[in-house]
Amino acid sequence: MLYFKSDYTEGAHPKVLQRLVDDNMVSMPGYCADETTVSAKAKIRKFCNKEDAQVWLLTGGTQTNQIVISTMLRQHQSVVAAESGHINVHESGAIEFVGHKVETVPQHDGKICAKELDAFLKDYFDGTLIFCPIPGMVYISHPTEYGTLYSKEELKNISDICHKYDIPLYLDGARLGYGLMSRHTDVTIDDIVELTDAFYIGGTKIGALCGEAIVFTKNNMPAYFDVMCKQHGAMLAKGRLLGMQFDTLFTDNLYLEISRHAIDMAEYLKEVFVEKGYTMHVDSPTNQQFVVLDNKKAEELKQNVAMEFWERLDEDRSVYRFVTSWSTKKENIDKLKELL
Amino acid sequence: MLYFKSDYTEGAHPKVLQRLVDDNMVSMPGYCADETTVSAKAKIRKFCNKEDAQVWLLTGGTQTNQIVISTMLRQHQSVVAAESGHINVHESGAIEFVGHKVETVPQHDGKICAKELDAFLKDYFDGTLIFCPIPGMVYISHPTEYGTLYSKEELKNISDICHKYDIPLYLDGARLGYGLMSRHTDVTIDDIVELTDAFYIGGTKIGALCGEAIVFTKNNMPAYFDVMCKQHGAMLAKGRLLGMQFDTLFTDNLYLEISRHAIDMAEYLKEVFVEKGYTMHVDSPTNQQFVVLDNKKAEELKQNVAMEFWERLDEDRSVYRFVTSWSTKKENIDKLKELL
Amino acid sequence: MLYFKSDYTEGAHPKVLQRLVDDNMVSMPGYCADETTVSAKAKIRKFCNKEDAQVWLLTGGTQTNQIVISTMLRQHQSVVAAESGHINVHESGAIEFVGHKVETVPQHDGKICAKELDAFLKDYFDGTLIFCPIPGMVYISHPTEYGTLYSKEELKNISDICHKYDIPLYLDGARLGYGLMSRHTDVTIDDIVELTDAFYIGGTKIGALCGEAIVFTKNNMPAYFDVMCKQHGAMLAKGRLLGMQFDTLFTDNLYLEISRHAIDMAEYLKEVFVEKGYTMHVDSPTNQQFVVLDNKKAEELKQNVAMEFWERLDEDRSVYRFVTSWSTKKENIDKLKELL
Amino acid sequence: MLYFKSDYTEGAHPKVLQRLVDDNMVSMPGYCADETTVSAKAKIRKFCNKEDAQVWLLTGGTQTNQIVISTMLRQHQSVVAAESGHINVHESGAIEFVGHKVETVPQHDGKICAKELDAFLKDYFDGTLIFCPIPGMVYISHPTEYGTLYSKEELKNISDICHKYDIPLYLDGARLGYGLMSRHTDVTIDDIVELTDAFYIGGTKIGALCGEAIVFTKNNMPAYFDVMCKQHGAMLAKGRLLGMQFDTLFTDNLYLEISRHAIDMAEYLKEVFVEKGYTMHVDSPTNQQFVVLDNKKAEELKQNVAMEFWERLDEDRSVYRFVTSWSTKKENIDKLKELL
Repeated sequence: MLYFKSDYTEGAHPKVLQRLVDDNMVSMPGYCADETTVSAKAKIRKFCNKEDAQVWLLTGGTQTNQIVISTMLRQHQSVVAAESGHINVHESGAIEFVGHKVETVPQHDGKICAKELDAFLKDYFDGTLIFCPIPGMVYISHPTEYGTLYSKEELKNISDICHKYDIPLYLDGARLGYGLMSRHTDVTIDDIVELTDAFYIGGTKIGALCGEAIVFTKNNMPAYFDVMCKQHGAMLAKGRLLGMQFDTLFTDNLYLEISRHAIDMAEYLKEVFVEKGYTMHVDSPTNQQFVVLDNKKAEELKQNVAMEFWERLDEDRSVYRFVTSWSTKKENIDKLKELL
Repeated sequence: MLYFKSDYTEGAHPKVLQRLVDDNMVSMPGYCADETTVSAKAKIRKFCNKEDAQVWLLTGGTQTNQIVISTMLRQHQSVVAAESGHINVHESGAIEFVGHKVETVPQHDGKICAKELDAFLKDYFDGTLIFCPIPGMVYISHPTEYGTLYSKEELKNISDICHKYDIPLYLDGARLGYGLMSRHTDVTIDDIVELTDAFYIGGTKIGALCGEAIVFTKNNMPAYFDVMCKQHGAMLAKGRLLGMQFDTLFTDNLYLEISRHAIDMAEYLKEVFVEKGYTMHVDSPTNQQFVVLDNKKAEELKQNVAMEFWERLDEDRSVYRFVTSWSTKKENIDKLKELL
Repeated sequence: MLYFKSDYTEGAHPKVLQRLVDDNMVSMPGYCADETTVSAKAKIRKFCNKEDAQVWLLTGGTQTNQIVISTMLRQHQSVVAAESGHINVHESGAIEFVGHKVETVPQHDGKICAKELDAFLKDYFDGTLIFCPIPGMVYISHPTEYGTLYSKEELKNISDICHKYDIPLYLDGARLGYGLMSRHTDVTIDDIVELTDAFYIGGTKIGALCGEAIVFTKNNMPAYFDVMCKQHGAMLAKGRLLGMQFDTLFTDNLYLEISRHAIDMAEYLKEVFVEKGYTMHVDSPTNQQFVVLDNKKAEELKQNVAMEFWERLDEDRSVYRFVTSWSTKKENIDKLKELL
Repeated sequence: MLYFKSDYTEGAHPKVLQRLVDDNMVSMPGYCADETTVSAKAKIRKFCNKEDAQVWLLTGGTQTNQIVISTMLRQHQSVVAAESGHINVHESGAIEFVGHKVETVPQHDGKICAKELDAFLKDYFDGTLIFCPIPGMVYISHPTEYGTLYSKEELKNISDICHKYDIPLYLDGARLGYGLMSRHTDVTIDDIVELTDAFYIGGTKIGALCGEAIVFTKNNMPAYFDVMCKQHGAMLAKGRLLGMQFDTLFTDNLYLEISRHAIDMAEYLKEVFVEKGYTMHVDSPTNQQFVVLDNKKAEELKQNVAMEFWERLDEDRSVYRFVTSWSTKKENIDKLKELL
C-alpha cells in the first residue's frame, strides 16, 4: 500500500527518535522543568528571532487550540474563524466545550479575507448587534486546511483589522514548516512573529511523535498558563518527551530541512498528476494536494493507494487529498505514477 | 545526584523504546485505528481476563480522570473522593473545570472507609439534603497517594456501597502495577475487574514515555467516547505512540516484571532506612516510601539526593517521600545508605 | 411615544397582577412546592390535553433554552437550528457557554426545511463526518423570529426526520399563544404536543411579568431536573411568582384570549400599512410585522414611534419591525396611521 | 399553620406590589434600559454613599453568586468560602458547573477567621502548593447561614488578608438588611462598601417578589457584564420587574424599616423561647433563630408550626430554625408562645 493519506502515518524523524534513545536513562525533573524543555524553548525563541517570546510545549493540535483560545478569551467572547477552519469543523466542538462560540466568515480556498473580516467585526463593536458573544480573537491556519498560504500582504491586512478592534490574531501552524518552505510564499517566520499575537509550530505532522510548540509573541502568555494546562489535562509528567523532540527538531535546522523535503515531494507529486492529465482542484503550494479523480479511477487506485476522500464534485468525479511529509519516499511517487 | 523524587524521572523501559524504533517507519492509519493500538487493547483485555472489557488509551492521568469522570457523570452529579484524592488536590481543578464538584470523605492513610462512605451517601439519596449536587461516582486510587493499598475486603465493601446507591466505582491506577506486585496485597487484577466499573492502568509511571489505559469492565464505555476524547483535546493523531508502548508492556509479562523490580527496590530502601534507625511515616507496601527526617539531615541529604518534601511534622522534623520505579538501580540505594 | 418596538414593553395583564395582589400574604412553601405552581402545572397539562405531560416553570426564554438543551444533550452533542434561530444569534452564546455547539441549517423566512435538515443530519450518522460534535436535538421556534409559522405538514416532516435519526425536536414557543391564535395556521396545541419532544409556552411576551412554561411531552423530563435548574441559578425561592401568573393565564382561557387580541391588532396594523401603500417585507401571520420604510420616513416616524430596526435593504430603504401584544390599544394604531 | 420556616413564604411588601400595579401599563424599553431600573440603581448608589458604585439587578441569590464569581475569576482560579457557605452546600454545584472549585476553610458559627484564611492562602502563593487551582476570591455571607454577623474588626481583618494576596472579597448579602438593622452590630453599609470589592443586597428575602442588587464598589464591574448576564440566562426582558421593586425598597428608607421589623420580631421570638426555658443553639443577632427542641416537642409543634429542621444534636434533641421577616406578625409569635 502506498500511503498518501496524511502526514502522520509514520513515526518520528530518525534523529528525533535517536535523541529519545540517547537520553533515555538521564534523570530529569518532571512537568516541563527538565533541561531539554528549557533548551527547546530557547532554540525556538532563537528560530523566531525573538528573545522575549514565550514558548510552551503541548502534545496535539486540538488540545493546543482549545487551551490557547480559552485562556486568551474572556467568558463572553467568541473566536472568529473561516467556515472551513479546523476549530469549526474537525475538533468535535472542543472550543464550545470550554464555553466559547466559533463565529465564521467565508473561506476562499481556506483563507479569510481582511475586508470581509472587517465588515463582520464592525457590527459587534459599533452597537448594531446586541446580546451576541463579542469576538475576542481571530483564528487562521497557515497553511490552511486546503494547503493554501496567505501572502504577506494578506496577513498584514488581517493583522491590521485585528488591531483596529484590539483583538489578538492567532495562527494555527500545524503544518507551519511546510508553509515556510513552500516555493511560493513571501511570508517568513519573522512576519508571523510580528503580525500575530500567538501561533503554534506543529511537530506532530513534521517529524515528531507528538508535540506542538506555542509561541506568544507579544509578552502576552496568560499568567498561570502552566496551571491552566494541567487543568485541561494537558501537562505531561514526562515533559522531556516534548522537550527532547523539539530540541532536536530545532538543532541544525532539522525542522526546515525535513519540511523542505516534503515540499519537494509535493511539487514532484503535482508534476506527476499534471503530466498524467489530472486536474488539481486547488492550487496548493504546500504538502497537501487536491486532485480530481473520476470515480472509476478512484476505486481502482484504492486497491494500492491510501488517499483521503475530500468531497464529491459531481456524479462522476470527486476530489481526493494526497499528502506528502518529511517521510515521503520519491520511489513511492514513482510507483504511484505507474498506477495513474 | 541520586533521584528518588518520583517515578517519572527517566524515559521509557528500553524494550518499549526499542519498539518505537523498530516500527518507526511502518505506515499506519491515525487516530487510534492503527494495528498496534488494536493489539494493545486485545492484550490488556487478556491481562484482565475479561474478553468483553472495553479499553481506551490516553496520554496522562489528569486527562484520563477528567475524561472518565465527565463522560460517566450527568450534569448535576458530583464525584466522591478521599480528601487526599489526586483529583481533589493535585489536578488544578480539572474536574470542576468540566462542571463537576468533587465531594470528599475522610482519608485514612489515603484510603476511604466503606462505612463512612455509606453514611456520606445516605443523606443525598434519602431526601435529607436538597439542592446539592448528587453523588454520581466514587473515585479511589490504588495504590493511594500515600502508597497504601486496599485489601480485597475493603475494596469489596466499597464496591457494595456503590452498588447500594447504584453509582459506579472508578479506580485510579496510575501506579496499578506497583500495587499488584506488592508483597502485602490480596487484591488481584481479577478482583479489580470484578469490583470496579472502570479503572485505568498507569503507564507513565511504569515504563512508558506517556500513556494510561482505561478499562471499562461492565460493558459501560460511554457511547461516542472517541468523539468526547477529541473534544477534550485528548486524541493523538499518532495513536501508535500509545499503541506500541502498551503492546510492548503487555507482551511477555513486561508490565508486571518491571513493577516487581520497583517493589523489590522499595522493600530494600525501607530496610535501609529502618536499619539506619529512621522512622517510616506511613506503612507503605508499594513504591512510595515516606520517611521522617530531621531538618538538619534533610538539608544535608539535599546536596546529593532528589527527594520530595511531603509535609512538616513539627518544628524539627518533616516527612519526605522516596520513590522507586522500574528504573531504580540498587547501587543508588547503596549510595544513599552511605549518606544516611 | 407610540410603542410598537416589542411585546414586552408593558407589565402584566391586569388579571395576572390582581392575582399577585390577592394572594400576596398567603404563606406558601418555597422553591416551586407551593400550591399555585402545582395548580398551574395541572392547568397547563389540561391545556395540552396530555395528562402525563411534565411541566416546569422558569423565568425567561434564554434561561429556558439553555436549561432544556443542556439537560437533554450529552457532552458530545450539538443542537441544530436555523441560521436565524434565537439560540444562534441573540442569546450571547448561552448554549456554547454550557458546552454545546449550535449547528445551523438555512432559514427560509425563519423556518427550516425538513429536506435540508435530512441532508444535513445524514452525514453525521452515516460515518461521512468524523470528529464532529454529533447532532443531539433539533431546535425550531414557532412563531419564528420573523413571525412566520410552520404548517402542520411542515412540522410533521421535521418531526419525522428527527425520529429517523432518533433525536428530540424542541420548539421554542416564546410567542406560542400568538402562533396558536393566528388566522392563518392549521397547527393546534395537540399537534405540538404530538410532534415535539419538548416545547415551552411563553409567558413574558404574553401577559406575564416574567415566566415560561416548559412541557415535556413524552415522559422525558430529565431526572433531577429541579437540581439542574438550581445549578443553573434558575430556581426562584418564591416560585409562587411564576405559579400564580401561569395559574391565572390558564384560567378561563385567558392566555388564548389575550393572544387573540394581539393577532387582531396585528391584522389591523397590517391593513393600515397596506392601505397606506407600504410593503410588508415578510408575510407574517402573527404579532410581529416587518415593514419596508424609506430612510426619510423612518427618521420622521422615530420622533413619535418606538419601532425596531431590523435590517437595511438598500441605500434608501430599511426593514422595521412593528410588534403588537396583549396590551396593544387600537387607538394607538389609529394614531400611527395618521403619521404614515 | 404558623409559618416560621423561612423568610420567603409570603409575596412582596404591599408598597412594592402597589408600585407594580401603579406603573403596570407604562411602556418602557426592555432589558434593564427602563427608567425604573436606572432610578433604582441611583438610589442604591446613594444608599451606599458611593456615587461611582456600579449596580446591577438580578433575580435570585444562586444566580447572583454564580455570575459574580464566574465573571470575576479567571479560568484557573477557585473561590474560598466557609465550609458552611451557601455556595458550598446549597447551590447544587452552581459554581463548579461554570468551572471553578470552591475551596473551604473552617466555619465558626458560619464565619471564617482571618488568621485561618491567611494560613490557608499562604501555601498557594509562596510556591508550597503546585498544580492546584489558585484562590481568586474570598466569599463570605453577612449575615451568615447561622444568622451570625462579622464585627467591623473581623471584617477588616479578612479584607486586609484579601488585599495582602491581592484577591477580591465578595459578600453575599441575601439578608443584608437584617444584618444592618441588628441591635448587635457595629458594621454599617459604609464599612461594607469600603471593605469589600463586591456584595449584593438581598431583595427576595426582604420585601421583594424576587431580586438581588449587586454592588461593585471599586469601579471593578467586569466589562460586558450585561452580555455575560444574558449568557447565563439571567437577563429579564422586563427588567422593570426588578427596577420597580428596588426603586420602591430604596425610597423613604423602606428597605431598612422592614428589616428592622424582622429584627424586632426575632428579638421577641428569642425572648419567648428563653422565657419558656428553651436553649438557643447559636447566639444569633439577626432574623434566623436556632432553637434546641426535644424530639417529642418537635413532633407536637409540627402539627401547627412550619419550622425548619436544621440538625440532630443527639438521640433525643434536634436544632430547628425559626425565621422572621418583614411580614412576620407579632400575634403569630404570641400564638406560638402558647404552644411552647
